Amino acid sequence: MSNISSFPKKLKIKLSIAIPSSILENCQDLRSQTEKIGIIARACAIFKVEEIFIYPHYFKTKNSIKENNLKFITTIFNYLECPPYLRKRLFPISPYLKFSGLLPPLKIAHHILKNKFENLESGEIREGLIIESNDKFSRVDIGLDQKFYLDIPNLKINSRITIFLKKQNSKMKISMIDPNNLRYYWGYKIYIQDLKKILDNYKDLCVIITSKYGKNIEKNKTRLINKVLQVSKLLVVFGAPFEGLIPIFKKKEIKIQNNNFFDLNMIPHQGTETVTTEEALISTLSILNYLYWDSIQ
Amino acid sequence: MSNISSFPKKLKIKLSIAIPSSILENCQDLRSQTEKIGIIARACAIFKVEEIFIYPHYFKTKNSIKENNLKFITTIFNYLECPPYLRKRLFPISPYLKFSGLLPPLKIAHHILKNKFENLESGEIREGLIIESNDKFSRVDIGLDQKFYLDIPNLKINSRITIFLKKQNSKMKISMIDPNNLRYYWGYKIYIQDLKKILDNYKDLCVIITSKYGKNIEKNKTRLINKVLQVSKLLVVFGAPFEGLIPIFKKKEIKIQNNNFFDLNMIPHQGTETVTTEEALISTLSILNYLYWDSIQ
Repeated sequence: MSNISSFPKKLKIKLSIAIPSSILENCQDLRSQTEKIGIIARACAIFKVEEIFIYPHYFKTKNSIKENNLKFITTIFNYLECPPYLRKRLFPISPYLKFSGLLPPLKIAHHILKNKFENLESGEIREGLIIESNDKFSRVDIGLDQKFYLDIPNLKINSRITIFLKKQNSKMKISMIDPNNLRYYWGYKIYIQDLKKILDNYKDLCVIITSKYGKNIEKNKTRLINKVLQVSKLLVVFGAPFEGLIPIFKKKEIKIQNNNFFDLNMIPHQGTETVTTEEALISTLSILNYLYWDSIQ
Repeated sequence: MSNISSFPKKLKIKLSIAIPSSILENCQDLRSQTEKIGIIARACAIFKVEEIFIYPHYFKTKNSIKENNLKFITTIFNYLECPPYLRKRLFPISPYLKFSGLLPPLKIAHHILKNKFENLESGEIREGLIIESNDKFSRVDIGLDQKFYLDIPNLKINSRITIFLKKQNSKMKISMIDPNNLRYYWGYKIYIQDLKKILDNYKDLCVIITSKYGKNIEKNKTRLINKVLQVSKLLVVFGAPFEGLIPIFKKKEIKIQNNNFFDLNMIPHQGTETVTTEEALISTLSILNYLYWDSIQ
Protein backbone atom coordinates (compact mmCIF):
# COMPACT_ATOMS: atom_id res chain seq x y z
CA MET A 1 0.00 0.00 0.00
CA SER A 2 3.05 2.24 -0.26
CA ASN A 3 1.83 3.94 -3.42
CA ILE A 4 -0.61 6.75 -2.68
CA SER A 5 -2.82 5.82 -5.63
CA SER A 6 -3.64 2.55 -3.85
CA PHE A 7 -4.63 4.21 -0.56
CA PRO A 8 -8.20 3.25 0.39
CA LYS A 9 -10.57 6.19 -0.01
CA LYS A 10 -12.66 7.63 2.80
CA LEU A 11 -16.38 6.82 2.86
CA LYS A 12 -18.59 9.77 1.99
CA ILE A 13 -20.34 9.29 5.32
CA LYS A 14 -18.48 9.52 8.65
CA LEU A 15 -18.86 6.12 10.29
CA SER A 16 -18.60 5.89 14.10
CA ILE A 17 -19.21 3.17 16.65
CA ALA A 18 -19.97 3.22 20.38
CA ILE A 19 -18.91 0.35 22.64
CA PRO A 20 -19.08 -0.02 26.44
CA SER A 21 -16.08 0.19 28.74
CA SER A 22 -17.20 -3.19 30.12
CA ILE A 23 -16.34 -4.82 26.81
CA LEU A 24 -13.51 -6.80 28.40
CA GLU A 25 -15.46 -8.18 31.35
CA ASN A 26 -15.73 -11.67 29.87
CA CYS A 27 -11.99 -11.93 29.19
CA GLN A 28 -9.96 -14.20 31.42
CA ASP A 29 -6.69 -12.30 31.47
CA LEU A 30 -4.70 -9.34 30.16
CA ARG A 31 -3.66 -11.24 27.05
CA SER A 32 -7.27 -11.99 26.07
CA GLN A 33 -8.23 -8.38 26.79
CA THR A 34 -5.43 -7.11 24.57
CA GLU A 35 -6.39 -9.48 21.75
CA LYS A 36 -10.06 -8.50 21.97
CA ILE A 37 -9.25 -4.82 21.44
CA GLY A 38 -7.07 -5.96 18.55
CA ILE A 39 -10.00 -7.74 16.91
CA ILE A 40 -12.26 -4.69 17.32
CA ALA A 41 -9.61 -2.28 16.02
CA ARG A 42 -9.06 -4.46 12.96
CA ALA A 43 -12.78 -4.55 12.20
CA CYS A 44 -12.95 -0.75 12.53
CA ALA A 45 -10.02 -0.32 10.15
CA ILE A 46 -11.36 -2.77 7.55
CA PHE A 47 -14.71 -0.98 7.45
CA LYS A 48 -13.28 2.56 7.77
CA VAL A 49 -14.67 3.58 11.14
CA GLU A 50 -13.44 7.11 11.92
CA GLU A 51 -14.55 7.49 15.53
CA ILE A 52 -14.71 4.93 18.33
CA PHE A 53 -16.71 6.13 21.34
CA ILE A 54 -16.18 4.25 24.59
CA TYR A 55 -19.12 4.83 26.89
CA PRO A 56 -18.57 4.18 30.61
CA HIS A 57 -20.50 1.09 31.67
CA TYR A 58 -19.76 -1.26 34.53
CA PHE A 59 -21.28 -4.58 35.34
CA LYS A 60 -20.29 -6.48 38.43
CA THR A 61 -18.05 -9.40 37.57
CA LYS A 62 -14.88 -10.59 39.20
CA ASN A 63 -12.87 -10.10 36.03
CA SER A 64 -13.47 -6.40 35.55
CA ILE A 65 -10.50 -4.14 35.96
CA LYS A 66 -12.85 -1.20 36.62
CA GLU A 67 -11.05 2.12 37.07
CA ASN A 68 -8.15 1.21 34.81
CA ASN A 69 -10.39 -0.19 32.14
CA LEU A 70 -10.81 3.00 30.17
CA LYS A 71 -7.13 3.83 30.23
CA PHE A 72 -6.19 0.31 29.12
CA ILE A 73 -8.73 0.25 26.30
CA THR A 74 -7.74 3.63 24.91
CA THR A 75 -4.03 2.80 25.16
CA ILE A 76 -4.39 -0.37 23.08
CA PHE A 77 -6.65 1.29 20.50
CA ASN A 78 -4.28 4.23 20.14
CA TYR A 79 -1.21 2.00 20.03
CA LEU A 80 -2.72 0.03 17.17
CA GLU A 81 -3.71 3.12 15.22
CA CYS A 82 -0.26 4.71 15.59
CA PRO A 83 2.14 4.09 12.68
CA PRO A 84 4.60 1.41 13.87
CA TYR A 85 7.59 3.72 13.37
CA LEU A 86 6.27 6.25 15.92
CA ARG A 87 5.24 3.79 18.61
CA LYS A 88 8.52 3.70 20.49
CA ARG A 89 8.44 7.45 21.00
CA LEU A 90 4.73 7.72 21.86
CA PHE A 91 4.23 4.61 23.97
CA PRO A 92 6.73 4.18 26.79
CA ILE A 93 6.98 0.71 28.35
CA SER A 94 3.78 0.04 30.29
CA PRO A 95 2.16 -3.00 31.91
CA TYR A 96 -0.81 -2.33 29.61
CA LEU A 97 1.36 -3.10 26.60
CA LYS A 98 2.73 -6.41 27.89
CA PHE A 99 1.03 -8.35 25.09
CA SER A 100 1.25 -5.69 22.39
CA GLY A 101 3.52 -8.02 20.41
CA LEU A 102 0.50 -10.23 19.79
CA LEU A 103 -1.61 -7.43 18.34
CA PRO A 104 -2.42 -7.73 14.64
CA PRO A 105 -1.10 -4.96 12.37
CA LEU A 106 -3.86 -2.64 11.15
CA LYS A 107 -2.16 -2.05 7.77
CA ILE A 108 -4.09 1.14 7.11
CA ALA A 109 -2.79 3.73 4.66
CA HIS A 110 -0.45 5.62 7.00
CA HIS A 111 1.25 2.51 8.32
CA ILE A 112 3.57 2.61 5.33
CA LEU A 113 6.50 0.24 5.37
CA LYS A 114 8.89 2.21 3.16
CA ASN A 115 11.69 3.28 5.44
CA LYS A 116 14.52 4.28 3.16
CA PHE A 117 15.05 7.91 2.30
CA GLU A 118 16.03 7.12 -1.29
CA ASN A 119 12.63 5.46 -1.90
CA LEU A 120 10.63 8.52 -0.88
CA GLU A 121 8.49 10.02 -3.57
CA SER A 122 7.19 13.52 -4.09
CA GLY A 123 3.50 13.58 -3.18
CA GLU A 124 3.72 11.07 -0.36
CA ILE A 125 1.63 11.60 2.77
CA ARG A 126 2.86 10.29 6.13
CA GLU A 127 2.39 10.65 9.83
CA GLY A 128 5.13 12.42 11.77
CA LEU A 129 6.02 13.45 15.29
CA ILE A 130 7.32 16.82 16.48
CA ILE A 131 10.58 16.03 18.24
CA GLU A 132 11.98 19.53 18.52
CA SER A 133 10.42 22.98 18.20
CA ASN A 134 11.74 26.47 18.82
CA ASP A 135 10.87 30.04 17.87
CA LYS A 136 11.93 29.50 14.29
CA PHE A 137 11.24 25.96 13.16
CA SER A 138 10.34 22.42 14.21
CA ARG A 139 11.99 19.09 13.60
CA VAL A 140 9.85 16.09 12.64
CA ASP A 141 10.38 12.33 12.79
CA ILE A 142 8.61 10.69 9.87
CA GLY A 143 10.04 7.23 10.40
CA LEU A 144 13.33 7.68 8.57
CA ASP A 145 16.89 8.05 9.83
CA GLN A 146 16.88 11.58 8.50
CA LYS A 147 14.71 14.07 10.38
CA PHE A 148 12.86 16.79 8.48
CA TYR A 149 12.54 20.49 9.16
CA LEU A 150 9.21 22.25 9.15
CA ASP A 151 9.16 26.05 8.96
CA ILE A 152 6.47 26.32 11.62
CA PRO A 153 7.68 27.41 15.07
CA ASN A 154 6.43 26.56 18.57
CA LEU A 155 4.68 23.27 18.02
CA LYS A 156 3.97 20.89 20.87
CA ILE A 157 6.72 18.33 21.38
CA ASN A 158 5.55 14.75 20.88
CA SER A 159 2.42 15.76 19.02
CA ARG A 160 1.50 13.80 15.93
CA ILE A 161 1.11 15.59 12.63
CA THR A 162 0.29 14.61 9.09
CA ILE A 163 2.77 15.74 6.48
CA PHE A 164 2.98 16.05 2.72
CA LEU A 165 6.29 15.45 0.93
CA LYS A 166 7.29 17.57 -2.02
CA LYS A 167 10.48 17.80 -4.03
CA GLN A 168 11.71 21.39 -4.30
CA ASN A 169 14.96 22.19 -6.08
CA SER A 170 15.95 18.52 -5.89
CA LYS A 171 15.41 18.53 -2.10
CA MET A 172 12.56 16.72 -0.36
CA LYS A 173 10.56 19.14 1.82
CA ILE A 174 7.65 18.52 4.14
CA SER A 175 4.58 20.59 4.86
CA MET A 176 1.85 20.06 7.42
CA ILE A 177 -1.67 19.12 6.31
CA ASP A 178 -4.97 18.47 8.07
CA PRO A 179 -5.81 14.75 7.81
CA ASN A 180 -9.52 15.63 7.99
CA ASN A 181 -9.25 17.06 4.49
CA LEU A 182 -7.65 13.97 2.99
CA ARG A 183 -9.71 11.82 0.67
CA TYR A 184 -8.10 8.70 2.14
CA TYR A 185 -9.18 6.67 5.15
CA TRP A 186 -6.75 7.81 7.81
CA GLY A 187 -7.56 5.63 10.83
CA TYR A 188 -9.81 6.21 13.82
CA LYS A 189 -9.89 8.49 16.85
CA ILE A 190 -10.89 7.35 20.35
CA TYR A 191 -13.32 9.30 22.55
CA ILE A 192 -14.62 8.57 26.02
CA GLN A 193 -18.14 9.88 26.35
CA ASP A 194 -21.34 9.21 28.23
CA LEU A 195 -23.80 7.20 26.12
CA LYS A 196 -26.61 9.71 26.60
CA LYS A 197 -24.33 12.51 25.48
CA ILE A 198 -23.19 10.60 22.40
CA LEU A 199 -26.79 9.90 21.37
CA ASP A 200 -27.77 13.53 21.98
CA ASN A 201 -25.08 14.65 19.58
CA TYR A 202 -26.42 12.26 16.96
CA LYS A 203 -30.09 13.05 17.27
CA ASP A 204 -30.26 14.71 13.86
CA LEU A 205 -28.01 12.16 12.21
CA CYS A 206 -28.40 8.40 11.92
CA VAL A 207 -28.02 5.89 14.74
CA ILE A 208 -28.20 2.11 14.53
CA ILE A 209 -28.80 0.19 17.72
CA THR A 210 -27.97 -3.49 17.46
CA SER A 211 -29.57 -6.33 19.36
CA LYS A 212 -31.04 -9.78 19.03
CA TYR A 213 -34.43 -8.22 19.80
CA GLY A 214 -34.09 -5.51 17.19
CA LYS A 215 -36.28 -5.16 14.13
CA ASN A 216 -35.80 -7.18 11.00
CA ILE A 217 -32.96 -5.75 8.94
CA GLU A 218 -34.50 -7.15 5.74
CA LYS A 219 -37.69 -5.16 6.27
CA ASN A 220 -35.97 -1.92 7.27
CA LYS A 221 -33.26 -1.87 4.63
CA THR A 222 -34.82 0.72 2.33
CA ARG A 223 -35.63 3.17 5.12
CA LEU A 224 -32.12 2.73 6.55
CA ILE A 225 -30.34 3.24 3.26
CA ASN A 226 -32.41 6.30 2.41
CA LYS A 227 -31.47 7.82 5.76
CA VAL A 228 -27.79 6.89 5.46
CA LEU A 229 -27.57 8.58 2.08
CA GLN A 230 -29.16 11.75 3.47
CA VAL A 231 -26.99 12.34 6.52
CA SER A 232 -23.28 13.00 6.96
CA LYS A 233 -22.68 10.79 9.99
CA LEU A 234 -23.70 7.30 11.00
CA LEU A 235 -23.26 5.86 14.50
CA VAL A 236 -23.60 2.17 15.36
CA VAL A 237 -24.09 1.39 19.07
CA PHE A 238 -23.22 -1.96 20.67
CA GLY A 239 -24.17 -3.47 24.02
CA ALA A 240 -22.03 -5.10 26.70
CA PRO A 241 -20.99 -8.74 27.27
CA PHE A 242 -23.34 -9.20 30.22
CA GLU A 243 -25.93 -6.56 29.44
CA GLY A 244 -27.65 -5.77 26.16
CA LEU A 245 -28.57 -2.28 24.97
CA ILE A 246 -32.20 -2.49 26.05
CA PRO A 247 -31.47 -2.77 29.82
CA ILE A 248 -28.60 -0.29 29.48
CA PHE A 249 -30.95 2.27 27.89
CA LYS A 250 -33.52 1.64 30.61
CA LYS A 251 -31.05 2.28 33.43
CA LYS A 252 -29.77 5.41 31.79
CA GLU A 253 -33.31 6.56 31.00
CA ILE A 254 -32.53 6.86 27.33
CA LYS A 255 -35.60 6.92 25.11
CA ILE A 256 -35.64 6.42 21.41
CA GLN A 257 -38.57 7.85 19.53
CA ASN A 258 -37.04 9.32 16.51
CA ASN A 259 -36.97 8.67 12.80
CA ASN A 260 -33.20 8.74 12.79
CA PHE A 261 -32.88 5.75 15.11
CA PHE A 262 -32.86 2.18 13.87
CA ASP A 263 -33.17 -0.65 16.36
CA LEU A 264 -32.02 -3.58 14.23
CA ASN A 265 -31.11 -7.22 14.45
CA MET A 266 -28.25 -7.50 11.97
CA ILE A 267 -27.85 -11.27 12.46
CA PRO A 268 -31.29 -12.63 11.61
CA HIS A 269 -31.94 -16.19 12.82
CA GLN A 270 -28.64 -16.68 14.61
CA GLY A 271 -27.59 -20.27 15.31
CA THR A 272 -26.15 -19.58 18.77
CA GLU A 273 -27.82 -18.39 21.94
CA THR A 274 -25.63 -15.30 22.16
CA VAL A 275 -23.36 -13.25 19.94
CA THR A 276 -20.36 -11.41 21.39
CA THR A 277 -19.81 -7.71 20.86
CA GLU A 278 -16.88 -8.26 18.52
CA GLU A 279 -18.82 -10.82 16.48
CA ALA A 280 -21.78 -8.43 16.24
CA LEU A 281 -19.41 -5.61 15.31
CA ILE A 282 -17.78 -7.37 12.34
CA SER A 283 -21.10 -8.83 11.15
CA THR A 284 -22.88 -5.48 11.36
CA LEU A 285 -20.14 -3.39 9.77
CA SER A 286 -19.83 -5.95 6.97
CA ILE A 287 -23.53 -5.70 6.10
CA LEU A 288 -23.50 -1.90 6.33
CA ASN A 289 -20.44 -1.75 4.08
CA TYR A 290 -22.13 -4.00 1.56
CA LEU A 291 -25.44 -2.07 1.69
CA TYR A 292 -23.63 1.25 1.39
CA TRP A 293 -21.74 0.28 -1.75
CA ASP A 294 -24.73 -1.56 -3.13
CA SER A 295 -26.83 1.59 -2.84
CA ILE A 296 -24.38 4.00 -4.45
CA GLN A 297 -23.10 1.77 -7.26
CA MET B 1 -32.06 -22.14 24.86
CA SER B 2 -33.20 -25.11 26.92
CA ASN B 3 -36.72 -25.04 25.52
CA ILE B 4 -36.99 -26.83 22.22
CA SER B 5 -39.34 -24.21 20.77
CA SER B 6 -36.50 -21.69 20.96
CA PHE B 7 -34.00 -23.91 19.12
CA PRO B 8 -32.67 -22.11 16.02
CA LYS B 9 -34.01 -23.68 12.84
CA LYS B 10 -31.84 -25.14 10.10
CA LEU B 11 -31.36 -23.13 6.91
CA LYS B 12 -33.17 -24.59 3.91
CA ILE B 13 -29.84 -24.70 2.12
CA LYS B 14 -26.88 -26.71 3.42
CA LEU B 15 -24.12 -24.20 4.08
CA SER B 16 -20.49 -25.42 4.01
CA ILE B 17 -17.11 -23.71 4.11
CA ALA B 18 -13.63 -24.78 3.00
CA ILE B 19 -10.53 -23.45 4.76
CA PRO B 20 -6.86 -24.38 4.34
CA SER B 21 -4.88 -26.44 6.84
CA SER B 22 -2.34 -23.60 6.81
CA ILE B 23 -4.85 -21.34 8.52
CA LEU B 24 -2.75 -21.19 11.69
CA GLU B 25 0.55 -20.32 10.03
CA ASN B 26 0.43 -16.70 11.13
CA CYS B 27 -0.22 -17.59 14.79
CA GLN B 28 2.60 -17.10 17.22
CA ASP B 29 1.88 -19.95 19.61
CA LEU B 30 -0.47 -22.77 20.59
CA ARG B 31 -2.72 -20.42 22.54
CA SER B 32 -3.26 -18.13 19.52
CA GLN B 33 -3.84 -21.16 17.32
CA THR B 34 -6.46 -22.50 19.71
CA GLU B 35 -8.20 -19.13 19.91
CA LYS B 36 -8.24 -18.73 16.14
CA ILE B 37 -10.07 -22.04 15.68
CA GLY B 38 -12.45 -20.83 18.40
CA ILE B 39 -13.24 -17.66 16.45
CA ILE B 40 -13.87 -19.64 13.25
CA ALA B 41 -16.04 -22.23 15.01
CA ARG B 42 -18.14 -19.47 16.61
CA ALA B 43 -18.70 -17.79 13.23
CA CYS B 44 -19.74 -21.14 11.73
CA ALA B 45 -22.21 -21.75 14.57
CA ILE B 46 -23.72 -18.24 14.43
CA PHE B 47 -24.35 -18.54 10.69
CA LYS B 48 -25.36 -22.25 10.77
CA VAL B 49 -22.54 -23.79 8.78
CA GLU B 50 -23.11 -27.57 8.64
CA GLU B 51 -19.85 -28.76 7.08
CA ILE B 52 -16.33 -27.44 7.53
CA PHE B 53 -13.89 -28.80 4.95
CA ILE B 54 -10.19 -28.48 5.75
CA TYR B 55 -8.16 -28.74 2.58
CA PRO B 56 -4.48 -29.67 2.93
CA HIS B 57 -2.33 -26.65 2.10
CA TYR B 58 1.17 -25.88 3.29
CA PHE B 59 3.14 -22.75 2.93
CA LYS B 60 6.69 -22.55 4.19
CA THR B 61 6.88 -20.53 7.36
CA LYS B 62 8.75 -21.21 10.54
CA ASN B 63 5.55 -21.24 12.58
CA SER B 64 3.82 -24.05 10.79
CA ILE B 65 3.26 -27.22 12.75
CA LYS B 66 2.87 -29.20 9.50
CA GLU B 67 2.01 -32.88 10.00
CA ASN B 68 0.17 -32.32 13.25
CA ASN B 69 -1.72 -29.34 11.92
CA LEU B 70 -4.71 -31.27 10.63
CA LYS B 71 -5.07 -33.34 13.78
CA PHE B 72 -4.87 -30.25 15.98
CA ILE B 73 -7.39 -28.28 13.92
CA THR B 74 -9.94 -31.10 13.81
CA THR B 75 -9.51 -31.81 17.54
CA ILE B 76 -10.30 -28.21 18.51
CA PHE B 77 -13.24 -27.93 16.09
CA ASN B 78 -14.71 -31.22 17.32
CA TYR B 79 -14.10 -30.36 20.97
CA LEU B 80 -16.01 -27.11 20.53
CA GLU B 81 -18.92 -28.75 18.74
CA CYS B 82 -19.25 -31.50 21.38
CA PRO B 83 -21.81 -30.82 24.13
CA PRO B 84 -19.82 -29.79 27.23
CA TYR B 85 -21.21 -32.72 29.27
CA LEU B 86 -19.70 -35.31 26.89
CA ARG B 87 -16.28 -33.73 26.50
CA LYS B 88 -14.58 -35.49 29.40
CA ARG B 89 -15.44 -38.89 27.97
CA LEU B 90 -14.63 -38.07 24.34
CA PHE B 91 -11.54 -35.92 24.74
CA PRO B 92 -8.82 -37.42 26.93
CA ILE B 93 -6.13 -35.06 28.20
CA SER B 94 -3.97 -34.00 25.24
CA PRO B 95 -1.33 -31.33 24.64
CA TYR B 96 -3.63 -30.06 21.86
CA LEU B 97 -6.22 -29.12 24.46
CA LYS B 98 -3.86 -27.20 26.72
CA PHE B 99 -5.72 -23.93 26.12
CA SER B 100 -9.21 -25.38 25.69
CA GLY B 101 -10.29 -23.50 28.82
CA LEU B 102 -9.98 -20.28 26.83
CA LEU B 103 -12.28 -21.44 24.04
CA PRO B 104 -15.61 -19.61 23.75
CA PRO B 105 -18.75 -21.70 24.27
CA LEU B 106 -20.64 -22.30 21.02
CA LYS B 107 -24.05 -22.25 22.74
CA ILE B 108 -25.76 -24.09 19.90
CA ALA B 109 -29.01 -25.95 20.48
CA HIS B 110 -27.58 -29.25 21.76
CA HIS B 111 -25.27 -27.60 24.28
CA ILE B 112 -28.15 -27.49 26.72
CA LEU B 113 -27.36 -26.55 30.27
CA LYS B 114 -30.16 -28.37 32.04
CA ASN B 115 -28.51 -31.09 34.05
CA LYS B 116 -31.09 -32.16 36.59
CA PHE B 117 -33.23 -35.18 35.90
CA GLU B 118 -36.31 -33.60 37.41
CA ASN B 119 -36.18 -30.76 34.92
CA LEU B 120 -36.26 -33.03 31.89
CA GLU B 121 -39.25 -32.62 29.64
CA SER B 122 -40.96 -34.99 27.28
CA GLY B 123 -40.06 -34.05 23.71
CA GLU B 124 -36.52 -32.92 24.50
CA ILE B 125 -33.72 -33.71 22.05
CA ARG B 126 -30.19 -34.20 23.32
CA GLU B 127 -26.83 -35.62 22.37
CA GLY B 128 -25.74 -38.80 24.11
CA LEU B 129 -22.86 -41.23 24.23
CA ILE B 130 -22.98 -45.04 24.14
CA ILE B 131 -21.17 -46.15 27.29
CA GLU B 132 -22.20 -49.81 27.33
CA SER B 133 -23.69 -52.11 24.71
CA ASN B 134 -24.40 -55.84 24.66
CA ASP B 135 -26.55 -58.28 22.70
CA LYS B 136 -29.72 -56.94 24.27
CA PHE B 137 -29.48 -53.24 24.95
CA SER B 138 -27.22 -50.21 25.24
CA ARG B 139 -26.65 -47.70 27.98
CA VAL B 140 -26.39 -44.00 27.15
CA ASP B 141 -24.91 -40.99 28.93
CA ILE B 142 -27.00 -37.92 28.14
CA GLY B 143 -25.32 -35.61 30.62
CA LEU B 144 -27.26 -36.55 33.74
CA ASP B 145 -26.32 -38.60 36.78
CA GLN B 146 -28.83 -41.21 35.72
CA LYS B 147 -27.92 -43.25 32.63
CA PHE B 148 -30.60 -44.25 30.15
CA TYR B 149 -31.29 -47.58 28.47
CA LEU B 150 -31.84 -47.90 24.76
CA ASP B 151 -33.36 -51.08 23.43
CA ILE B 152 -30.92 -51.28 20.54
CA PRO B 153 -28.12 -53.86 20.94
CA ASN B 154 -24.52 -53.89 19.73
CA LEU B 155 -23.79 -50.23 19.28
CA LYS B 156 -20.24 -48.88 19.16
CA ILE B 157 -18.94 -47.83 22.56
CA ASN B 158 -18.10 -44.13 22.77
CA SER B 159 -20.09 -43.24 19.68
CA ARG B 160 -22.24 -40.14 19.82
CA ILE B 161 -25.95 -40.42 19.16
CA THR B 162 -28.87 -38.03 19.11
CA ILE B 163 -31.79 -39.00 21.30
CA PHE B 164 -35.40 -38.02 21.77
CA LEU B 165 -36.97 -38.08 25.25
CA LYS B 166 -40.52 -39.26 25.75
CA LYS B 167 -42.58 -39.91 28.85
CA GLN B 168 -44.15 -43.38 28.76
CA ASN B 169 -46.18 -44.61 31.73
CA SER B 170 -44.71 -41.84 33.87
CA LYS B 171 -41.16 -42.98 32.99
CA MET B 172 -38.80 -41.00 30.79
CA LYS B 173 -37.58 -43.15 27.87
CA ILE B 174 -35.11 -42.36 25.11
CA SER B 175 -35.10 -43.29 21.47
CA MET B 176 -32.42 -42.74 18.85
CA ILE B 177 -33.02 -40.26 16.00
CA ASP B 178 -31.02 -39.13 12.98
CA PRO B 179 -29.92 -35.50 13.52
CA ASN B 180 -29.95 -34.99 9.73
CA ASN B 181 -33.73 -35.12 9.83
CA LEU B 182 -34.09 -32.49 12.54
CA ARG B 183 -35.40 -29.09 11.60
CA TYR B 184 -32.98 -27.48 14.06
CA TYR B 185 -29.42 -26.37 13.45
CA TRP B 186 -27.41 -29.16 15.04
CA GLY B 187 -23.79 -28.04 14.74
CA TYR B 188 -21.14 -28.75 12.11
CA LYS B 189 -19.12 -31.74 10.96
CA ILE B 190 -15.43 -31.62 10.05
CA TYR B 191 -14.00 -33.19 6.88
CA ILE B 192 -10.47 -33.27 5.56
CA GLN B 193 -10.50 -33.28 1.80
CA ASP B 194 -8.41 -32.18 -1.14
CA LEU B 195 -9.58 -28.83 -2.52
CA LYS B 196 -9.93 -30.16 -6.06
CA LYS B 197 -12.06 -33.04 -4.80
CA ILE B 198 -14.29 -30.72 -2.76
CA LEU B 199 -14.88 -28.47 -5.76
CA ASP B 200 -15.59 -31.46 -7.99
CA ASN B 201 -18.32 -32.58 -5.62
CA TYR B 202 -19.87 -29.12 -5.79
CA LYS B 203 -19.72 -28.59 -9.53
CA ASP B 204 -23.49 -28.79 -9.91
CA LEU B 205 -24.21 -26.81 -6.75
CA CYS B 206 -23.13 -23.31 -5.79
CA VAL B 207 -19.59 -22.25 -4.86
CA ILE B 208 -18.43 -18.83 -3.71
CA ILE B 209 -14.75 -18.06 -3.92
CA THR B 210 -13.70 -15.08 -1.86
CA SER B 211 -10.85 -12.70 -2.55
CA LYS B 212 -9.88 -9.07 -2.70
CA TYR B 213 -9.61 -9.48 -6.47
CA GLY B 214 -13.03 -11.06 -6.82
CA LYS B 215 -15.94 -9.51 -8.69
CA ASN B 216 -18.14 -6.84 -7.23
CA ILE B 217 -20.66 -8.37 -4.84
CA GLU B 218 -23.09 -5.51 -5.50
CA LYS B 219 -23.20 -6.27 -9.19
CA ASN B 220 -23.48 -10.05 -8.81
CA LYS B 221 -26.07 -10.14 -6.05
CA THR B 222 -29.09 -11.03 -8.16
CA ARG B 223 -27.34 -13.84 -10.03
CA LEU B 224 -25.96 -15.20 -6.76
CA ILE B 225 -29.28 -15.14 -4.93
CA ASN B 226 -31.10 -16.75 -7.83
CA LYS B 227 -28.56 -19.56 -7.82
CA VAL B 228 -28.62 -19.99 -4.03
CA LEU B 229 -32.40 -20.35 -4.08
CA GLN B 230 -32.18 -23.03 -6.80
CA VAL B 231 -29.61 -25.38 -5.27
CA SER B 232 -29.54 -27.44 -2.08
CA LYS B 233 -25.95 -26.77 -1.08
CA LEU B 234 -23.72 -23.72 -0.92
CA LEU B 235 -19.96 -23.85 -0.38
CA VAL B 236 -17.81 -20.83 0.50
CA VAL B 237 -14.06 -21.25 -0.07
CA PHE B 238 -11.40 -19.21 1.74
CA GLY B 239 -7.70 -18.75 1.01
CA ALA B 240 -4.69 -19.03 3.31
CA PRO B 241 -2.89 -16.44 5.47
CA PHE B 242 0.11 -16.22 3.14
CA GLU B 243 -1.48 -17.31 -0.12
CA GLY B 244 -4.75 -16.25 -1.66
CA LEU B 245 -7.09 -18.51 -3.59
CA ILE B 246 -5.90 -17.40 -7.02
CA PRO B 247 -2.31 -18.71 -6.61
CA ILE B 248 -3.62 -21.80 -4.75
CA PHE B 249 -5.93 -22.62 -7.68
CA LYS B 250 -3.09 -22.10 -10.15
CA LYS B 251 -0.76 -24.51 -8.35
CA LYS B 252 -3.46 -27.14 -8.06
CA GLU B 253 -4.49 -26.58 -11.68
CA ILE B 254 -8.05 -25.84 -10.68
CA LYS B 255 -10.02 -24.04 -13.36
CA ILE B 256 -13.32 -22.29 -12.83
CA GLN B 257 -15.48 -21.83 -15.88
CA ASN B 258 -18.87 -22.62 -14.60
CA ASN B 259 -22.09 -20.79 -13.97
CA ASN B 260 -22.26 -22.19 -10.47
CA PHE B 261 -19.03 -20.51 -9.38
CA PHE B 262 -18.92 -17.00 -8.00
CA ASP B 263 -15.58 -15.30 -7.58
CA LEU B 264 -16.53 -12.44 -5.27
CA ASN B 265 -15.05 -9.67 -3.17
CA MET B 266 -17.35 -9.60 -0.15
CA ILE B 267 -15.55 -6.65 1.48
CA PRO B 268 -15.75 -3.93 -1.17
CA HIS B 269 -13.33 -1.03 -0.69
CA GLN B 270 -11.58 -2.41 2.40
CA GLY B 271 -9.68 0.09 4.56
CA THR B 272 -6.75 -2.22 5.31
CA GLU B 273 -4.17 -3.75 3.00
CA THR B 274 -5.13 -7.31 3.95
CA VAL B 275 -8.02 -9.13 5.59
CA THR B 276 -7.41 -12.31 7.60
CA THR B 277 -9.27 -15.54 6.89
CA GLU B 278 -11.34 -15.30 10.06
CA GLU B 279 -12.25 -11.67 9.33
CA ALA B 280 -13.25 -12.59 5.78
CA LEU B 281 -15.21 -15.57 7.11
CA ILE B 282 -17.40 -13.60 9.54
CA SER B 283 -17.87 -10.73 7.07
CA THR B 284 -18.82 -13.07 4.23
CA LEU B 285 -21.15 -15.31 6.23
CA SER B 286 -22.85 -12.24 7.68
CA ILE B 287 -23.64 -10.82 4.23
CA LEU B 288 -24.79 -14.21 2.91
CA ASN B 289 -27.03 -14.67 5.95
CA TYR B 290 -28.52 -11.23 5.40
CA LEU B 291 -28.98 -11.75 1.64
CA TYR B 292 -30.52 -15.18 2.20
CA TRP B 293 -33.18 -13.93 4.61
CA ASP B 294 -33.70 -10.78 2.59
CA SER B 295 -34.49 -12.86 -0.48
CA ILE B 296 -36.92 -15.29 1.15
CA GLN B 297 -38.77 -12.83 3.39
